[in-house]
Amino acid sequence: MSGVAIWGVGTSRFGRQPDESPASLAWKAVLEALADAGTDSVDAVWVGTCFGAPGTAQRALHAAGITEVPIVTVENACASGTTALHEASEAVRTGRYERVLALGIEHLTSTFAGAIEPEQGDTEGASGMALPSIYAMSAARYVAEHGVTHEQLAAVAVKNSRHGALNERAMRRGELTVEQVLGSRMVADPLTLLQCCSLSDAAAAAVLGPPRDEPRDVRIRSSVLRSGALWDQRTDHVWGYEIVRETASAAYEQAGIGVADVDLFEVHDAFTIGEIVTTEALGLAPEGEGAALLDSGTTALGGSTPVNPSGGLLARGHPLGATGLAQTAEITWQLRGEAGPRQVEGARIGVVETMGGGVSGIDGNGAVVAVLEG
Amino acid sequence: MSGVAIWGVGTSRFGRQPDESPASLAWKAVLEALADAGTDSVDAVWVGTCFGAPGTAQRALHAAGITEVPIVTVENACASGTTALHEASEAVRTGRYERVLALGIEHLTSTFAGAIEPEQGDTEGASGMALPSIYAMSAARYVAEHGVTHEQLAAVAVKNSRHGALNERAMRRGELTVEQVLGSRMVADPLTLLQCCSLSDAAAAAVLGPPRDEPRDVRIRSSVLRSGALWDQRTDHVWGYEIVRETASAAYEQAGIGVADVDLFEVHDAFTIGEIVTTEALGLAPEGEGAALLDSGTTALGGSTPVNPSGGLLARGHPLGATGLAQTAEITWQLRGEAGPRQVEGARIGVVETMGGGVSGIDGNGAVVAVLEG
Repeated sequence: MSGVAIWGVGTSRFGRQPDESPASLAWKAVLEALADAGTDSVDAVWVGTCFGAPGTAQRALHAAGITEVPIVTVENACASGTTALHEASEAVRTGRYERVLALGIEHLTSTFAGAIEPEQGDTEGASGMALPSIYAMSAARYVAEHGVTHEQLAAVAVKNSRHGALNERAMRRGELTVEQVLGSRMVADPLTLLQCCSLSDAAAAAVLGPPRDEPRDVRIRSSVLRSGALWDQRTDHVWGYEIVRETASAAYEQAGIGVADVDLFEVHDAFTIGEIVTTEALGLAPEGEGAALLDSGTTALGGSTPVNPSGGLLARGHPLGATGLAQTAEITWQLRGEAGPRQVEGARIGVVETMGGGVSGIDGNGAVVAVLEG
Repeated sequence: MSGVAIWGVGTSRFGRQPDESPASLAWKAVLEALADAGTDSVDAVWVGTCFGAPGTAQRALHAAGITEVPIVTVENACASGTTALHEASEAVRTGRYERVLALGIEHLTSTFAGAIEPEQGDTEGASGMALPSIYAMSAARYVAEHGVTHEQLAAVAVKNSRHGALNERAMRRGELTVEQVLGSRMVADPLTLLQCCSLSDAAAAAVLGPPRDEPRDVRIRSSVLRSGALWDQRTDHVWGYEIVRETASAAYEQAGIGVADVDLFEVHDAFTIGEIVTTEALGLAPEGEGAALLDSGTTALGGSTPVNPSGGLLARGHPLGATGLAQTAEITWQLRGEAGPRQVEGARIGVVETMGGGVSGIDGNGAVVAVLEG
């Protein structure tokens, strides 16, 4: 393995952007990533989108002047963006191509009028359960099992709002209090509105290639993609815990590191409970102690292992297919020392994690964990 | 390159199957392919679907007992199935995995009430043009430029209906006459109803791995994926010609063969004009002489180079994401001598070709050409 490097990254702004087209958002992300990489062409493209119509990728790439090369659009629910990153990374690692683009695009405000509708093909969707309900059931069980308070759940949204306030491209810029989070309207008990990510539109991109003599490049030490096990066999853990634990464990092993070597994380906090369970699955805390870890300040900016310095899905935003590459851009900026007011001092190793929604009794459609090194 | 082999293939029936779910169709294709390959597990899966909702792949694979492995869903319009084949083939060729599954799933009767709706993000779609209109404009121009008659266009549907009549899994089993084809109602002048493929539901699968000591295995000599060029630079050829010509040319070169070495083809005859233009782009006839090639009987079963022995998209059916793997299954059966009443005698090299619809002034979203050897 000759290795894979991130040569450049770029993103659009995040938020409700009904007047932008998917192509115009992608165009901004791609041109920024190409300029950041110091190149104007790529040999192949992987595009992550969850609800983009057929041709979304080609329209967007056409607008950025990229045609004729192989273009593969991938879908993996909320992990669509990191699946594009993973496939692009593997294409460089295995020598298929020299210079590839990973792009995430999502324009949810033109796809859904309100919340994302339950998928009728799912057991859960057919019974009327959308993702907030599934996460809420996880949260309720977690609260009951581990004695965690509603204030501790809300603290995730508070922390990430403080991070997002430092991110000029974030969707939500205001710093929240626990009272504001708990006082927002109930979506699915115990998750209030400000504990749920919101529909948004954005694009994010990364240019990948072999390692080169360029100090700003970031190395992809490992990248692992995995799908979920049958959920009905798994009664010991909250939903989504096991797939992330297995994926992260493989990614650390392939990178030859332990969790203690990681300086910062961008993780899948689609709902507040998600970040708590994910930090446990990533090995930052034992099961049931993720909320205590948060309370200790460890995962806030200024703590020893910041989680979601960008503001995460809750504050930066969660444009599904773009999220994984937005996380990748944040870790890249952090490892270069280019993260401005939210810079994690001395960051050398960062981890990107996303987990795509589980359906029909599966513990997650897919998860990706990538270990990056500056 | 150590090579890639097709170990086994499987398909569901093709046609309107509203009482089947995408998962139940996929289950049939996957279990047949696994049994055909003589294996009961795979290390990774690529799934092609064009309009399948997020999670379609995971639900289907769960039903077939495949979980925890990496699953990547790909979309590339009508070339979604061959894009899954291509990515799976590349994963074996580059040593990423030992044993992989390529699966195509589409359930169009639950997605669309009538014809596939124009995509509003496309320049063409926004002006009300669906794919039949685009192909009809190609056909009208082709007829005007090359003096081809409407009877010659209809002859594609007649030939493929004869082939489909020999395929017990095909959607349309009746042999058609030129009079029936031209007498069916006009969809988009000059294309009548029986010159257009129809909405259908199906799944198809292939298990790939390194070459092994198994005489029924088929080798993938080459596989090439390419996206379209800007259409506004291309005024010399009918839409879709150039992308297929460039893709096929690269596939022949990588396989070290010429078109004369190919014994049979499965190609993208979504509309009658499509097969005529595609046979030219594949090098079977000079531009403007595809209809004469058809008239000569060369491309019919019994001719020297049969095209679409399965019945093609017109008769077997065109369940978008499943099509490329249905073509792959047909070529595999043919190269093994297992194609029954539609067997091409002495078939040794076969080619699979698909081209996904062009949008917003691009000459095809993507095309895949694969050269297979028995």
